[in-house]
Amino acid sequence: MPNGRKDLALLVDLYELTMAAGYKAIGRSEQRACFEYFFRELPPDTGFAVSAGLEQLLEFLEQLCFSEEDLEYLESTAIFSRGFLDYLRDFTFSGNVWAVPEGTVVFPGEPLVRVEGPLGQVQLIETFLLNTLNYATLVATKAARICLAAEGDPVMEFGLRRAHGPDGGLSGSRAAYIGGVSSTSNVLAGKEYGIPISGTQAHSWVMSFDEELEAFRAYAGVFPEKLVLLVDTYDTAGSGLPKALKVFQELRDKGRNVRAAVRLDSGDLVSLSKLAYRMFTEAGFGNPLIVASGDLDERQIAQLKQQGAKINCWGVGTQLITSYNYPALGGVYKLSAVERESGWVGRMKVSSSPEKLTLPGRKRLWRCFRENLCIADVIALADEEQPAKSEFSVAVPGQLDQRKKIEAAARCQELLKPVMSAGKRAGEQESLSEIRQRAAKAIELLPPNLKRLDNPQRYPVYVSDRLAKLTQQLLTDIE
Amino acid sequence: MPNGRKDLALLVDLYELTMAAGYKAIGRSEQRACFEYFFRELPPDTGFAVSAGLEQLLEFLEQLCFSEEDLEYLESTAIFSRGFLDYLRDFTFSGNVWAVPEGTVVFPGEPLVRVEGPLGQVQLIETFLLNTLNYATLVATKAARICLAAEGDPVMEFGLRRAHGPDGGLSGSRAAYIGGVSSTSNVLAGKEYGIPISGTQAHSWVMSFDEELEAFRAYAGVFPEKLVLLVDTYDTAGSGLPKALKVFQELRDKGRNVRAAVRLDSGDLVSLSKLAYRMFTEAGFGNPLIVASGDLDERQIAQLKQQGAKINCWGVGTQLITSYNYPALGGVYKLSAVERESGWVGRMKVSSSPEKLTLPGRKRLWRCFRENLCIADVIALADEEQPAKSEFSVAVPGQLDQRKKIEAAARCQELLKPVMSAGKRAGEQESLSEIRQRAAKAIELLPPNLKRLDNPQRYPVYVSDRLAKLTQQLLTDIE
Repeated sequence: MPNGRKDLALLVDLYELTMAAGYKAIGRSEQRACFEYFFRELPPDTGFAVSAGLEQLLEFLEQLCFSEEDLEYLESTAIFSRGFLDYLRDFTFSGNVWAVPEGTVVFPGEPLVRVEGPLGQVQLIETFLLNTLNYATLVATKAARICLAAEGDPVMEFGLRRAHGPDGGLSGSRAAYIGGVSSTSNVLAGKEYGIPISGTQAHSWVMSFDEELEAFRAYAGVFPEKLVLLVDTYDTAGSGLPKALKVFQELRDKGRNVRAAVRLDSGDLVSLSKLAYRMFTEAGFGNPLIVASGDLDERQIAQLKQQGAKINCWGVGTQLITSYNYPALGGVYKLSAVERESGWVGRMKVSSSPEKLTLPGRKRLWRCFRENLCIADVIALADEEQPAKSEFSVAVPGQLDQRKKIEAAARCQELLKPVMSAGKRAGEQESLSEIRQRAAKAIELLPPNLKRLDNPQRYPVYVSDRLAKLTQQLLTDIE
Repeated sequence: MPNGRKDLALLVDLYELTMAAGYKAIGRSEQRACFEYFFRELPPDTGFAVSAGLEQLLEFLEQLCFSEEDLEYLESTAIFSRGFLDYLRDFTFSGNVWAVPEGTVVFPGEPLVRVEGPLGQVQLIETFLLNTLNYATLVATKAARICLAAEGDPVMEFGLRRAHGPDGGLSGSRAAYIGGVSSTSNVLAGKEYGIPISGTQAHSWVMSFDEELEAFRAYAGVFPEKLVLLVDTYDTAGSGLPKALKVFQELRDKGRNVRAAVRLDSGDLVSLSKLAYRMFTEAGFGNPLIVASGDLDERQIAQLKQQGAKINCWGVGTQLITSYNYPALGGVYKLSAVERESGWVGRMKVSSSPEKLTLPGRKRLWRCFRENLCIADVIALADEEQPAKSEFSVAVPGQLDQRKKIEAAARCQELLKPVMSAGKRAGEQESLSEIRQRAAKAIELLPPNLKRLDNPQRYPVYVSDRLAKLTQQLLTDIE
């Protein structure tokens, strides 16, 4: 089970269980159905998202079972029949799953995970799937944006104290690493996922001594290597920086090979970092490490850089781990087809809000490239052949009668891969660093106009002719 | 350990471990220190907060230990000495803890938890303490606000799918219940905490049938009791509501005692709820249950009520479980005193931002009441006697030379209670429903001007004369 818990089967909205009980009661729980996961909107001013959370989902699906204790609790609610409790006692997930690999760049409306299997099962996993994919994708996306703003400087994730509970920290750290941060302060994330860990010191260290210089000397005595001193407890310019310099000089005088390194956590980070840089370089400490922290986000990092701050390492906590300006990705998991004797039949949700309309059918997803940059994605039906030539007709979602042609795409790549077959993983588990490299490469291949911090272009996502026709036909049927 | 995990000792920022290692190396880890937890700001337009998360913290402290696997991982980082790893192997928490009980109404700047013990220990628990208290207090506060807007209507918490990971859902559900919601959709929270669980049905149930009426009838067949039908899958007014009515009529015709009940998840909730109310009451179904959901928050609930919506039950998810408009409480845990041979010595952090100044010393917290409403809180030093008469002189934080008198307070109540002594709990564990009742009562006793959704009054929090003097004296010493 994800994150060391063995008993997350009940981490489920009650209605998933009552619906599964309903399907069981009317003899439909084994009828096959297809659900797809997608999100409708990107965070504000964000041109792309980075998918994450799949590994945790697959681990959950592989191990999903209900303990006797779970069944006793469910029995105590007096909601469920004996027959349904027996069904849960024997429950294992036997469905098929297709998904975009973690670390893939993705866009609104695209099917990111497709799950097919017995209706009772594929319904029951909805809540966990959404919980896991929504949060992980949100944080990986925020991390990617912050790392773009940092322009290659290392970003340390420091968010655990403001994360939403232990797991908000743990899976958040994993997702942030996928999105590009260099390290985390979260030691458990280091242990469980192999993420590099990092940290400096807290104000309390300095405050526990009678004198700031004494506090710095004591820390340097214990950790002379990779020493980073926090200089803003009392007066950064007047006390913290000169005393830190003194300690680095003392280390150098003892023959140590020292890189001067400080953390600035408050005050005007532009002027203070310039001052620190000048003090250290004038004293012969070239290339000092100047870490900044204190409620930073991608906009502040960009502005500090633009104003010439001499900061070369960023500690980002709250804004990253909570995706502060957009703390929930509205991903949904919608029924898109049911199997009848005649074969798969598409299903869609209509709504008074046209943007809430869902696309019917079992789907696949292509990405089209030209000169190594991706130029458009196409959502198609699962049984459609990938177009052999590099020019094909597509429709615009929301205006399905409006046709476009994708021309001169050098190649198309299939994004939804089989990852689970009859409840067993297909293929090897990827390492977290492979996933992180995939994300880095995918972001590199994005057109620059998608990577702006403000008003990025909207990436074109089309639907195939056949999918457009099916959608229009079902709409007519419903009306 | 909280939430079923037995191995959260490493859920800690690296710097807590390096600082603890530092204290150990220089022989100060057993020196006694006092840290206090407080937050500096309330969420926007919010007049009060509801404390939560203490039980999870105490559980963590009681069971905190490092496994051999943890120690092996720490050894592999090559950061720590053998001596420090041995210290961790024998680690148990032996400190004393005072805290405001869960479900207490609290305000910015107030010490909510005071921890005293060996410096190494009280430093090491910082990250978990902040992670737990910040998120739980945030969600309990948001829930209280949402329940005030609902004016006594039941509020169901539906947030799991948008919570930040499994635990964001689990501890979030617990905190929301403390803040006043009636039930949760999260079945694991029902099992672990005894919170009532509730739920309706999803669009997928309706979509999995060829016909909406057939879908409703099938569900009614399985769950004729407490049936709530989701009516917005295709066309609420033209299809969903009339077909739901038909199903309730069929149940009544079979002699069932039926309460008509529907959920509206999209569209104009005012006109649709009025239509539903009229249709059901005209057909003889008095007092229908009309549930609304769909990204609701306290402002939307207040506006829907003000516009006469006939909704009497609210499903609230994303906005509550993520505290969407303010997803992180900036609670901090600051060293306030260290023990020297002469006794406790106050410590404070100064800052270029005056609002980041901390108050020194070991503290207590009084709440003053007049005619049963609370009128002011006073932060005092731990060894100050509670004033015997109901009139005393206090200072205003931020303007410590400005004195006020609290007059005619009928009584003062001590808010910080001893909850842990030498690492063992003091007193009995409270039940969740006791905590929830405390919160409800505390909110009742708040002046109404603190409970407004917009521009609430600022509740007066003062500091005692002695604390004001200590603060000014330390400030002078530092300068």
